[in-house]
Amino acid sequence: MNIDSMSIDSMISPASIAVLGASNRKSSVGYAVMTNIISGGYAGKLYPVNPSSDTIQGLKCYKNIVDIEYAVDLAIIITPSNVVPQVLEECGKKGGVKAAVIISAGFKEIGEQGKILEDKIKRVAKRYGMRLIGPNCIGFINTDPKVSLNASFTKGMPKSGDIALVSQSGAICVAMLEYAKMRNMGFSKVFSLGNKADLNENDLLAMFANDDSTKVVLMYIEDLVDGRKFIEFASHITGELEKKKPILALKVGESTIGSKSIASHTGALAGSQEAYKAIFAQSGVLRVETLEELFDYAIAFAYQPIPKDGGATAVVSNAGGPATIIADESSKYNLKLTKLSEKTVSELSEILPKTASLINPIDIIGDADHTRYENTLRIVLKDPNVNSCIIVSTPQMMLNMESLADVTIKINNEFKEKTILSCMMAVAGIENALARLDENKIPQYSFPESATRAIVTMQSYRSWVARPRTDVKAFEVTRDDVRRVFEKVRSQGRNYVHEAEAMEVLKSYGFHIPKSQLTTTEDECAKLSEEIGYPVVLKVSSPNIVHKTDVGGVELNLKNTLEVREAFRRIIENARRSEGDAKILVGVNVQEFVANGKEMIIGMKRDPQFGPLLMFGLGGIYVQVFRDISFRLAPIKELGARHMIESTRASKLLLGVRGEKPSDIESIVESLQRMSQLVMDFSEIQEIDINPLLVFEQGKGSKVVDARIVIS
Amino acid sequence: MNIDSMSIDSMISPASIAVLGASNRKSSVGYAVMTNIISGGYAGKLYPVNPSSDTIQGLKCYKNIVDIEYAVDLAIIITPSNVVPQVLEECGKKGGVKAAVIISAGFKEIGEQGKILEDKIKRVAKRYGMRLIGPNCIGFINTDPKVSLNASFTKGMPKSGDIALVSQSGAICVAMLEYAKMRNMGFSKVFSLGNKADLNENDLLAMFANDDSTKVVLMYIEDLVDGRKFIEFASHITGELEKKKPILALKVGESTIGSKSIASHTGALAGSQEAYKAIFAQSGVLRVETLEELFDYAIAFAYQPIPKDGGATAVVSNAGGPATIIADESSKYNLKLTKLSEKTVSELSEILPKTASLINPIDIIGDADHTRYENTLRIVLKDPNVNSCIIVSTPQMMLNMESLADVTIKINNEFKEKTILSCMMAVAGIENALARLDENKIPQYSFPESATRAIVTMQSYRSWVARPRTDVKAFEVTRDDVRRVFEKVRSQGRNYVHEAEAMEVLKSYGFHIPKSQLTTTEDECAKLSEEIGYPVVLKVSSPNIVHKTDVGGVELNLKNTLEVREAFRRIIENARRSEGDAKILVGVNVQEFVANGKEMIIGMKRDPQFGPLLMFGLGGIYVQVFRDISFRLAPIKELGARHMIESTRASKLLLGVRGEKPSDIESIVESLQRMSQLVMDFSEIQEIDINPLLVFEQGKGSKVVDARIVIS
Repeated sequence: MNIDSMSIDSMISPASIAVLGASNRKSSVGYAVMTNIISGGYAGKLYPVNPSSDTIQGLKCYKNIVDIEYAVDLAIIITPSNVVPQVLEECGKKGGVKAAVIISAGFKEIGEQGKILEDKIKRVAKRYGMRLIGPNCIGFINTDPKVSLNASFTKGMPKSGDIALVSQSGAICVAMLEYAKMRNMGFSKVFSLGNKADLNENDLLAMFANDDSTKVVLMYIEDLVDGRKFIEFASHITGELEKKKPILALKVGESTIGSKSIASHTGALAGSQEAYKAIFAQSGVLRVETLEELFDYAIAFAYQPIPKDGGATAVVSNAGGPATIIADESSKYNLKLTKLSEKTVSELSEILPKTASLINPIDIIGDADHTRYENTLRIVLKDPNVNSCIIVSTPQMMLNMESLADVTIKINNEFKEKTILSCMMAVAGIENALARLDENKIPQYSFPESATRAIVTMQSYRSWVARPRTDVKAFEVTRDDVRRVFEKVRSQGRNYVHEAEAMEVLKSYGFHIPKSQLTTTEDECAKLSEEIGYPVVLKVSSPNIVHKTDVGGVELNLKNTLEVREAFRRIIENARRSEGDAKILVGVNVQEFVANGKEMIIGMKRDPQFGPLLMFGLGGIYVQVFRDISFRLAPIKELGARHMIESTRASKLLLGVRGEKPSDIESIVESLQRMSQLVMDFSEIQEIDINPLLVFEQGKGSKVVDARIVIS
Repeated sequence: MNIDSMSIDSMISPASIAVLGASNRKSSVGYAVMTNIISGGYAGKLYPVNPSSDTIQGLKCYKNIVDIEYAVDLAIIITPSNVVPQVLEECGKKGGVKAAVIISAGFKEIGEQGKILEDKIKRVAKRYGMRLIGPNCIGFINTDPKVSLNASFTKGMPKSGDIALVSQSGAICVAMLEYAKMRNMGFSKVFSLGNKADLNENDLLAMFANDDSTKVVLMYIEDLVDGRKFIEFASHITGELEKKKPILALKVGESTIGSKSIASHTGALAGSQEAYKAIFAQSGVLRVETLEELFDYAIAFAYQPIPKDGGATAVVSNAGGPATIIADESSKYNLKLTKLSEKTVSELSEILPKTASLINPIDIIGDADHTRYENTLRIVLKDPNVNSCIIVSTPQMMLNMESLADVTIKINNEFKEKTILSCMMAVAGIENALARLDENKIPQYSFPESATRAIVTMQSYRSWVARPRTDVKAFEVTRDDVRRVFEKVRSQGRNYVHEAEAMEVLKSYGFHIPKSQLTTTEDECAKLSEEIGYPVVLKVSSPNIVHKTDVGGVELNLKNTLEVREAFRRIIENARRSEGDAKILVGVNVQEFVANGKEMIIGMKRDPQFGPLLMFGLGGIYVQVFRDISFRLAPIKELGARHMIESTRASKLLLGVRGEKPSDIESIVESLQRMSQLVMDFSEIQEIDINPLLVFEQGKGSKVVDARIVIS
């Protein structure tokens, strides 16, 4: 947390503001921003600046910011982009201006020329020690009643509330505020980040950590400026604060970039999508798939407590259909529907009609009125097995929705520590009921699926918060050996580390590798094969041959001298043919033949933006067919390594199917951590593939059968 | 189409109705139904029946239906369940009553006693030749202006329109009508099916096929009464009619039933979920995951043409954010965003600002007014590469949403053959704009994700309609051989068919099986191995040994006489030991060793409800880990077999990865059809597993390596 969130505080809670480009023209952004500041009830001083006006919206207008005879904390700039550098320079000259919001567009987003302009304003800001929001943004909003500042051109001031909203896109920000209005949602802060020339999501996360008015953070993300910092800041907020705050994020821009010359499988499989997935997983950020989900989950987190551990969800409905939908949805997302205690069931049986279903989801039948809901809910929520409850209602003649809203509110007050969600499946004539629920912080959903998923998301957040904490381990390794190998590779003008060299590197970092020796003659090869013990593998070793199998350079499972000698001759012949005149054949590697394990792949690709991205997955041909792989940014902790394995289907295979013994999962956990350490220690490693890592039965470890390393 | 849809016509378009259980008590269902019939503007005669009233809602009330002096086409019954049989009996006695809607609950859904009651009313109805809707339903609605009948206790008459709604749950039906009201959706017919004592979804499908007022069918399904009939009727509607009608279905009740003693992999993997998945796939039904999706897609189908083949979607937006969301969503669902023609791009460049993005999704920038939308849309929709268009708008100062609605309507009229969807991402103050769009049949979505998925669903429907039609093939087979095998198995009091017998069965149906011979002595075994050719496999053959591998009864890849002899002795010894005193060892099978193919599994399990369910998937250990399997109800056509393969990830493997040659997919297509024929011919087959079917390179066929059959 080394970002000084104070500088942001002074930016978002300024005592005085100058609006550069303020305007009287009603259709202009300058007019809209002025109006928003004034009608939003801004508590500080406001100075419009525009060379061509004397007064703007009744306030004295200055020709230039330097003319303002008072202190200015914050400048809001809405001039054409080409004059922004000059205007910003004037802010600097004026002195005392701590920050500027640059709403103007026409920078990086329009191409090379805009980028030059953007670099210019960055330099100006830096020179004068000013922070920047934007450019190309719609500004920000701080609903704190002490500030009450709408420094943006949205439509009016949103309601004050517990949710912070961060959007990279201005248009999405506006659309979200509109939609939030319909759902009566309140915000603590709203930021449109635009081009992020200076202020970015990480600055805001640092600020939100200390912002008592923010309980939930919503993010619309197109890209992240620093993945590792994001992990650090976000996981701090989501998991380490005393009052932990969930972060909900919609990440867009997922089109895969065509990859050029990638030497490893990891390289081919590790795109930026995977990096983002890893980053969110490692920071406890709850990723959603649609804008609508952002809202659905945000109100749940903002209004209700996270469901406690050890119990699960109860459903009380006046119809079987929606109850079935919830049961399906729960099973889809592994949400546990509570088994009610015998006491609860027996109490329910006393008050409910015979045709009611007392097994959760509880169906209190279509003729239920609000009193039957109330009596049922009180019994159900008393049950210690129930931590959360979805109250479902379909329009029925006997049921007054407003009375049901009142019952829901009453029950919610009686059971404050339990999570209560409403699902009124009606639309017309329930406006009052919905308003009452909103006012009393009871999340309401039109569809049972959305209510269920909201609970699922809360449960998944709870697991994150409750996860065991582990550290990044430091294994004893021999770094110097690795350094020597890489020096040799570089001295020979190579990037590609030969298999034997790669094995040496991995051995230095504690991986188990098969016994292996380089031989140059048939006799030597036969002799060494005896020493290593049959069966053995022969592999050609030549700087010219990368794909050994393709040229007939590998022979497996050789069981005796005869087979070894024949194989040696074939390999040499094939290699000579494929090398043509090059004649720099080094020899043939004799290796212990390793078999009878599960083939896994572990690897790393250095992401150009985020750094080393570790991969784990099922090896062999299946890695391409099933893409059953998982990723994490290095460095990883033990828990992260374990999660990498658990999040693949291959983990089932490792636990043993069809009565097989389980594999040595601990050995993979350790291997992943050792690889993490290796790639953190040697930033020149661009790609690594251990494919396969042969994993044996539990307790019997694993061995690297083949490995590739590319260095820079 | 052997259901007489005429009888349903007279049910839903009756000339006269008696309401048995009509009431003056305002909170009663009997009152609600009467009110709905009257205020819905029913065109026929209406007779309330209630022993304790003289007039109901101003109409003369009869004590008993038999007292009515006029003809009655339809009876609506709302009495307590225990008197329903008697009341229905009276309907029969009255004579001429063609059908009854039984709204009363308290039948099958409450358990054994209710089931007895339900069987009773079924018998009564049958005796008098009356059709039934319900019981335990909310009735039906026919908005046809010639009938205008709301024979239900929903809240008022829905708007007339092109959508038919069928819901098994009454509560969901009511909730859906409520929600539809908000979205201004109109219905042709609405049916709440309840317990389906008589009338079920298949009757309705038969009727919808001929119902000109219905363009789209929405279904909320808890179960199907007859899967194969459903496939027949549904696929007729969705794919064969002149005016094809899409069916959108939400299927709930997906909890898996614990399976008991299942002998095959197919058995373990083929649950009722898989059967439903197969049924929907085979009938072209578009399955949705949530209620909300039902509406999202319904309006698209009801209002707009299905996008034409060969082109794809264009997006016109005034902001980059939502355009990116649509691009992401499209790539997630493989929706093609059109590459605009050079002409289009050049025309756009003339009218749009320099900062606009001319590459689809087209961003016409935040300051766009409705005229810029109009000009852009006209150019874009003229492009022959564009078949559908999503018009996205975020709230911006320069844009009046009502004017944009008008532009959208104008463009929609100019390009009637193209699919146009609106996505106004605003809420407040756009009520008029939305109403205009609704009136003019332009589907409107609040979220870009929903608009995109609507187009995806339409495209997927287009592929179904355009699919090549194939027939169920009849291969030449020798049925008698199979019959003889099964007779022998049965005569020995077995259900389990031995491997050798199973091979014989499959051979009779044209499968390729390895050369194999039963031997009883070591010498004979050695001799036959020579004849078959090395390498060979030995497998124990004994009626007592089901799991041959477990007892050491299988030896693979034996390369010479020595190995065969040793293996023979080992197997005999192991078998003797495992059989104990039983001593009914038959011998040892010598088999050709088949290798170098891809291991697939094909199988069948007879579903208790829907009949033979065929399975295809990746064989070996991976079938359990990845569940990469697909299902179809037999009989299947060639296309169905092809789809089964294509819908697995294993199909990638079969196409050849990492430069491998493709496998003989045609041979699998044929094998699946042959298995389909086999299980249709022999209804005693309960389960079959061919695991593995070894599939060789393209053109080289496949071989059954192991097979299990269980008969009844």
